[in-house]
Amino acid sequence: MTPDLVAAAQARLAGKVRQTPLLESPGLNRLAGRRVLVKAECLQHTGSFKYRGAKNTVLALQENGPLTGILAYSSGNHAQGVARAAQEAGLPAVIVMPSDAPRAKLEGTRAYGAEVVIYDRWSESREDIGARLAKERDLTLIRPYDEPLVIAGQATAGLELAAQAQAAGVTAADVLVCCGGGGLSAGIAVALDLAAPGLRVRTVEPEGFDDMARSLDAGAILANPPGGRSLCDAIVTPQPGELTFPILSRLAGPGLAVSDDACLTAMAAALQHLKLCVEPGGAAALAAALHHKDALTGDAVIVLATGGNVDAAVLAQAVARL
Amino acid sequence: MTPDLVAAAQARLAGKVRQTPLLESPGLNRLAGRRVLVKAECLQHTGSFKYRGAKNTVLALQENGPLTGILAYSSGNHAQGVARAAQEAGLPAVIVMPSDAPRAKLEGTRAYGAEVVIYDRWSESREDIGARLAKERDLTLIRPYDEPLVIAGQATAGLELAAQAQAAGVTAADVLVCCGGGGLSAGIAVALDLAAPGLRVRTVEPEGFDDMARSLDAGAILANPPGGRSLCDAIVTPQPGELTFPILSRLAGPGLAVSDDACLTAMAAALQHLKLCVEPGGAAALAAALHHKDALTGDAVIVLATGGNVDAAVLAQAVARL
Repeated sequence: MTPDLVAAAQARLAGKVRQTPLLESPGLNRLAGRRVLVKAECLQHTGSFKYRGAKNTVLALQENGPLTGILAYSSGNHAQGVARAAQEAGLPAVIVMPSDAPRAKLEGTRAYGAEVVIYDRWSESREDIGARLAKERDLTLIRPYDEPLVIAGQATAGLELAAQAQAAGVTAADVLVCCGGGGLSAGIAVALDLAAPGLRVRTVEPEGFDDMARSLDAGAILANPPGGRSLCDAIVTPQPGELTFPILSRLAGPGLAVSDDACLTAMAAALQHLKLCVEPGGAAALAAALHHKDALTGDAVIVLATGGNVDAAVLAQAVARL
Repeated sequence: MTPDLVAAAQARLAGKVRQTPLLESPGLNRLAGRRVLVKAECLQHTGSFKYRGAKNTVLALQENGPLTGILAYSSGNHAQGVARAAQEAGLPAVIVMPSDAPRAKLEGTRAYGAEVVIYDRWSESREDIGARLAKERDLTLIRPYDEPLVIAGQATAGLELAAQAQAAGVTAADVLVCCGGGGLSAGIAVALDLAAPGLRVRTVEPEGFDDMARSLDAGAILANPPGGRSLCDAIVTPQPGELTFPILSRLAGPGLAVSDDACLTAMAAALQHLKLCVEPGGAAALAAALHHKDALTGDAVIVLATGGNVDAAVLAQAVARL
């Protein structure tokens, strides 16, 4: 991941991605015991930051020659980002999605014109299915995080954040990022290293899926034990990415893990204090700010609210906590 | 309402109010049958546009000499705007609120440090109570809409909107504004008259409280019949303001009215497609875009989502529609 790739992504995405606001609320600050600045990536096109990386990758690939179609595998946010970027480019997209993906994400992906291929998360390999489809139908695979163009696209959120945090008077703070494979965390870490060296990324994962935290601690890639379950469908990946881990190993602080319960409470807080609809996996970082106060230092913390694509039944659980 | 007042408000509020985003979603466009651009004023400080007018008024009054305290009456959004503006100015605030105001608004107002005085909406006059308190305690009243400084503050939302709509390629469209006394509608109308003459304000009110629509149609101020009920607590005012009506009579198109049911459906659409938590009265304009398509012309419509301060039970009704 070079500064050139990040600068190219920034130029490519200018005017195409939404500059999402950095929000703050006195009520939320009181709950957290310090200033909490929330970067509202749930307001990004397609309802998550994933559009940044997908759009950057499709545009960059097209610069190198015509494409016949795009393939991705994803539980739903990368799916929608890729589907929309492909649709805008006039390209067919095939997205491999697990059968237990949220309905909102399945419908959202189809609404962006993509063909959805369902697989069983527990008995089939999405990578194998994807490789077969890519070969059969001449599709170009866009990986969800282990792809430099994707990481560079996500980094643009970090560049925005660096400027917004400075405008808010925060130049030294932890930046909590909801983490699956680590594409957003790594992208933001690279961006902050370039543009705001006083800000430090810390990954936040669901309990039982804290592979990145344990890997950072061990200094080597460790996988999650099989059989875990979490409401945070967006960030339940088996292990850190091969490209993202070395970046985070160099630049990130210690990782954190949060319970589903804490994520639901954070979703309620986002509705009440920020007027944002955030999905469980998108609320993990805010949950850490509210529930792991003692693991943080300083009088401000920055939080990524990474996505808002949530089914009614789960959202209702959060509303019930208001 | 002179251009000078609006320009002064813009200068005074620069960096103090949040520039709220103008959001668009393909899914929402499909539902509405045309482009729908949503100005997300629920993301404004205090969760509604009301902070603009309140902040402008407190700052402007202070320019003319010291104040001893602020008084306001409001069902809750003006209340929170005034309470926060007073708190930031180091001034005590007394807010007269109806006993049936949403809990979120009562608690929010107190959280900004204000003293809340409860009255019965059906048997007492908030104006009389306010006048007595103002005299007894040397408080300066900030009216919710019939106050030039408040209207000028709300106009800053219109100035932002003019630039954002142009950037989105929309220079001719109806601008639907949730309307109680008409302060926001009048402010935006004045701003658009100055900055985007191809955009035209149209008021949206709850059914049974469509006093502004009927007054605009009749060319004279008409009141609502007594005894109406609506979920849209933020915009159930008895009749148009004496300052706001002449402005809207000159600048606005025909008014629209929407049912509570349509507002709940619009709240669900805002959660799903925009990831925004909007209160019933704040969703009225979006409801009109979705339910009165035939009353609109053109291939784009602009909508103000004016507030997001809603109690859990009402939000749950909206979530149940997803």
